[in-house]
Amino acid sequence: MILHGYWRSGTSYRTRIALNLKGLTYDQVGVDLRAGAQRSDAFLALNPQGMVPALELGPEDGGPAVLTQSPAILEWLDEAFPEPPLLPVNKIERAHVRAMAALVECDVHPLNNLRVLKAVREISGGDQADTDAWAARWIRPGLEALESLIARHGRGWCFGETPTLADCCLIPQAYSATRFNIALDPWPRIAAVVARAALHPAFAAAHPDRQADAD
Amino acid sequence: MILHGYWRSGTSYRTRIALNLKGLTYDQVGVDLRAGAQRSDAFLALNPQGMVPALELGPEDGGPAVLTQSPAILEWLDEAFPEPPLLPVNKIERAHVRAMAALVECDVHPLNNLRVLKAVREISGGDQADTDAWAARWIRPGLEALESLIARHGRGWCFGETPTLADCCLIPQAYSATRFNIALDPWPRIAAVVARAALHPAFAAAHPDRQADAD
Repeated sequence: MILHGYWRSGTSYRTRIALNLKGLTYDQVGVDLRAGAQRSDAFLALNPQGMVPALELGPEDGGPAVLTQSPAILEWLDEAFPEPPLLPVNKIERAHVRAMAALVECDVHPLNNLRVLKAVREISGGDQADTDAWAARWIRPGLEALESLIARHGRGWCFGETPTLADCCLIPQAYSATRFNIALDPWPRIAAVVARAALHPAFAAAHPDRQADAD
Repeated sequence: MILHGYWRSGTSYRTRIALNLKGLTYDQVGVDLRAGAQRSDAFLALNPQGMVPALELGPEDGGPAVLTQSPAILEWLDEAFPEPPLLPVNKIERAHVRAMAALVECDVHPLNNLRVLKAVREISGGDQADTDAWAARWIRPGLEALESLIARHGRGWCFGETPTLADCCLIPQAYSATRFNIALDPWPRIAAVVARAALHPAFAAAHPDRQADAD
């Protein structure tokens, strides 16, 4: 497997966590989003949408195929490599975990990635304070909602006693929050999950600073 | 089951489509987003995040429980009511369908919903042309990418010969595009799926104009 991603991209980061949790070996190719490498012919041939991550599969994994969109890749990983499971068995519990993941995937992350912040800078006139306020506007209520869900469902991780899809999504979002100078103090349960993840080898190895393309 | 939603909300619309495709009977409660009903105590008790849709389940469906986040609700529907399936059997094909759904769920819809357009109006100074340009900026490349995926995978619907999660997501997004005066002509495959869905009872009954809270 080859993961085409970018060290600081939240969607690449969550994919690395899931790959690591499954104990899989994979190669990585860095796609430099700041240099526009996602719009190169080579990358567009892999993913016509021009977005990371893209997971290239060989015949040994059911390919050749290129999987895109991190929510789809995470679900595929859990179906193709069932152990350890990233979703509970009970159907309603699965829905709760997926809702926590989707909260990050749909309501927080899409509003704060590189392409959107660039657009915000354009329409607001380029003030850094405006983009920070924009990011905080979506990150704060998202983490607030997640905190209440962890209070309800978490027992060490976002849901229950083992990492799930929800943790794969939360940890990169918490990393992103700190980049926007949002301290996690108002959300002690999230802070506890983040502290726990920092000590977990699968999460630690996925951290942006540990990637070969980090600068 | 009780679906708490809003007639024009894309996430409520996609949930109605899935419920209808599964042939389920459900009650609906309108949550008037323009009046701020999603922040009422009654609704926050159901969903502390204050967002639609929320699907209230009784004991007959494994509840009492409240499911939130449409991607999670759609997956639950497919697991709890397997027929007709909204995902293929093959794991890689499932990933492709989920990627098409996620493309809308994560890269297009979150940037054009009511709360985000309100924020855009605030930072851009309130010009309608600015919000239309903002919406088009995300909708156009999203539909462009989806068109190429339908070309690859579609045989009447987004993926294959029957409706999937991808169609549940595309149809509300196409409806939203027309509200922003984006004609579908550049994307003939999408236009064909939209035309087909208009004749399908499950999609037709889910249309915003046919809901009790429509004005």
